[in-house]
Amino acid sequence: MTSKLNTIAEWLKQEQIDFCFLTNPDSVFYVSGFLSDPHERLLGVGIFQSGDPFLVCPSMEKEDAKKAGWGYDIIGYTDIENPWTLIHKLCNDRTKSLEKIAIEKEHMNVERYELIGSLFSQATFLPAEEKLRKLRMVKSESEIATIREACALADYAVEVGCSEIAEGKTELEVLAAIEYELKKKGVSEMSFSTMVLTGQNGASPHGNPGLTIMKKGDLVLFDLGVVVDGYCSDITRTVALGDISEKQKEIYDTVLKAQAAAIEASKPGVTCQSVDLTARNIISAAGYGEYFPHRLGHGLGISVHEYPSLTETNTLLLEEGMVFTIEPGIYVPGVAGVRIEDDVLVTSNGVEILTKFPKELQIIR
Amino acid sequence: MTSKLNTIAEWLKQEQIDFCFLTNPDSVFYVSGFLSDPHERLLGVGIFQSGDPFLVCPSMEKEDAKKAGWGYDIIGYTDIENPWTLIHKLCNDRTKSLEKIAIEKEHMNVERYELIGSLFSQATFLPAEEKLRKLRMVKSESEIATIREACALADYAVEVGCSEIAEGKTELEVLAAIEYELKKKGVSEMSFSTMVLTGQNGASPHGNPGLTIMKKGDLVLFDLGVVVDGYCSDITRTVALGDISEKQKEIYDTVLKAQAAAIEASKPGVTCQSVDLTARNIISAAGYGEYFPHRLGHGLGISVHEYPSLTETNTLLLEEGMVFTIEPGIYVPGVAGVRIEDDVLVTSNGVEILTKFPKELQIIR
Repeated sequence: MTSKLNTIAEWLKQEQIDFCFLTNPDSVFYVSGFLSDPHERLLGVGIFQSGDPFLVCPSMEKEDAKKAGWGYDIIGYTDIENPWTLIHKLCNDRTKSLEKIAIEKEHMNVERYELIGSLFSQATFLPAEEKLRKLRMVKSESEIATIREACALADYAVEVGCSEIAEGKTELEVLAAIEYELKKKGVSEMSFSTMVLTGQNGASPHGNPGLTIMKKGDLVLFDLGVVVDGYCSDITRTVALGDISEKQKEIYDTVLKAQAAAIEASKPGVTCQSVDLTARNIISAAGYGEYFPHRLGHGLGISVHEYPSLTETNTLLLEEGMVFTIEPGIYVPGVAGVRIEDDVLVTSNGVEILTKFPKELQIIR
Repeated sequence: MTSKLNTIAEWLKQEQIDFCFLTNPDSVFYVSGFLSDPHERLLGVGIFQSGDPFLVCPSMEKEDAKKAGWGYDIIGYTDIENPWTLIHKLCNDRTKSLEKIAIEKEHMNVERYELIGSLFSQATFLPAEEKLRKLRMVKSESEIATIREACALADYAVEVGCSEIAEGKTELEVLAAIEYELKKKGVSEMSFSTMVLTGQNGASPHGNPGLTIMKKGDLVLFDLGVVVDGYCSDITRTVALGDISEKQKEIYDTVLKAQAAAIEASKPGVTCQSVDLTARNIISAAGYGEYFPHRLGHGLGISVHEYPSLTETNTLLLEEGMVFTIEPGIYVPGVAGVRIEDDVLVTSNGVEILTKFPKELQIIR
């Protein structure tokens, strides 16, 4: 078995859990190498304390799973077969009785839970998430290498965006140009819907790009990420189209100062909380506390939002090998929205910044 | 209250359900008009038998919800607040005790279910999905108008794709051109990851577009959809790049014949099953039964996969106003992959085909 599957089997032994059934496509990819979006269909990996694991997927994806390197049993099912009956049978053939089963409680829905609960009616169900998150939180060398590639492409995307913005263009026009150039480089998936927001739209931290036209004096916010071999990057830059007001400038400088301080504060052994508060206190001291309504950042990897979560209450300690975003923002309706976001890797004594597009205010003429 | 909210309140009265809490973003959009992707955060609408409903969303999205027309209470929460406590309090203020609560069991995860179960420990939880699905399955005039627009853009996308494919181009290059042209028309979201698959790649019904180069004699498969104002379209066309083999042609003709027959068979009062089998029997009779491993089609609307599901076992009767796909396919590894998919609207005596790109084999020279 691969080291990841082995680690989980070892965990099952330690915790005396008989069986672990992972259903989050990200976890399935993490342990199997098979990356697939099953939509509403079931995709899962079953792992026992000993003996081979198995994969469950729609039968039309069996070949893809084998191509991805899965060398164990595959339960394929058609749209008219019930995969749960097949899983139940395989488990019964393997072991006498499953008393303790670990599942992903944040991913599995209630309908499936009731179904698995009725099939394995003697079992108690434990959450597998914490273990998976801890495993996934600290990245391997090869994962870091892939994330580096994704970050380099995110930098490139912002570069394209900056070269494309101009008075009179729409948000979507610039967005289209960015994604076109990325696809030409072989990028087939973004980490999330690319955001290009201009002027007032940038003051909504999760706005939707549309047909708003860019004009001189606008701040233009790019928030985007690229998926490379299943791993995500995530960058935000806010740039000026022509000259901006003193107030806009002040907001930009405050965010930049907060972001730099949070990066400086990040190293092994400090809490997520303290990193968040480092940035938050600077923004509050400048009088913008109420306009920074979200956490400082989030881990990223196979998911664009994973552990660690950088909130003002999370006491988790940073560890070497963690990868996360640092993305303070200030959104003052009617005035400006600014967010600056980097992806960082925790090193032995600080962090390495993986996204490298310049952060001093870029003024596009 | 809007008619949709009223219909749900009426249903609660009929079924003597005290409270309904919808958490699927599609359902939230359906009843509230507020379209948002909350990622791992909680988004929900609470509906009582009488009295105003409420919306729960991250506090940074409150303004967007109001802009979208939500005129009732909004529970906004920050990343360090527990929205469930706030919901519990609001419910307690409103009614004495909630005995029966409807939730979306296919959307709500086990973790949230355990949480809501502990807060409302005296309550039993019923599934809300069937009601929602039935409501959503039959489209209103305004929904149909929106889907028509989405279908017209899907046609346009295939047209762009056909004009772009050429010997030596990669799948991603053609895909990029399609999405670029759509964005220029104001499209900000696709129904799902656009697929452009050439040659052998088309024989995987859910392949991933990449850097494979198109060559003469390839069948090129486009599967894509466009989102307009929250509503999806979904089209598949398979076209030939230059001359193809007799075997490829035979497979194409078989799929086309099956697709036409299924369209012809669709009208109010017939079962989903009989429509699926109409196509499936033609494919089986031609000797390709084992190479058609998926259902014939699926409903679409706010979700790209919703009711009705056209499988060989579903005895649900078609009704006027339903919108679904008809998409038989044959995938013979090493030979060819062909799928032809239209979106259709059930009319009083048949169906109207909403996607209009030609289906006779297009040979691109």
